[in-house]
Amino acid sequence: MSVAKVYVTLKKGILDPQGRAVKESLDSLGFSGVEEVRMGKYIEVKLRGADKDKLEKELTGMCEKLLANPIIEDYRYEME
Amino acid sequence: MSVAKVYVTLKKGILDPQGRAVKESLDSLGFSGVEEVRMGKYIEVKLRGADKDKLEKELTGMCEKLLANPIIEDYRYEME
Repeated sequence: MSVAKVYVTLKKGILDPQGRAVKESLDSLGFSGVEEVRMGKYIEVKLRGADKDKLEKELTGMCEKLLANPIIEDYRYEME
Repeated sequence: MSVAKVYVTLKKGILDPQGRAVKESLDSLGFSGVEEVRMGKYIEVKLRGADKDKLEKELTGMCEKLLANPIIEDYRYEME
C-alpha cells in the first residue's frame, strides 16, 4: 500500500474569490497582518501496489483527469 | 513577508463523503487500484512581518478560529 499526497493550487494569476473571502474574514477577526490567502486542495490517495513508477503514472492520470483542472490549476504530489 | 502553508485534514474516523465520491469517480474512470481518498484543504497565507514566533502564534489563532474546525479537523502548518 502506498499513500500519495496531492496538492492542487490555482495557477498564478487566476482569481481566488474563496481565498479573498477568507482574507477578509481574518481581517474582521482582528488578524491584521495578512497580505493574501490562496485556497487549494490537499488530497490523500491510498493506492494498492508497490511499483512506484506504475503508481506515479497512474497518479498523474488521476490528477489530469479528475483531481485537478489543468486549465486553471497546478498540481504536485509526494509518494510515501 | 512570510508564507505559511496550512494543511487541514479531517480527523481519523470522521466520515469523508467528498473523498468517497472522488474514489468512486476514479473507479469508474478505470483507476482500479485506489483503496481510499481523503479530501483536505491546502491554504497559503502570506503574512506581513518577520518575527517567526509572533507569526506562528497568530497563525495558530487563525487555524483555531477560522481555517479549521478543531472539532472534526486537524491542522498543521509550515512557515517559510
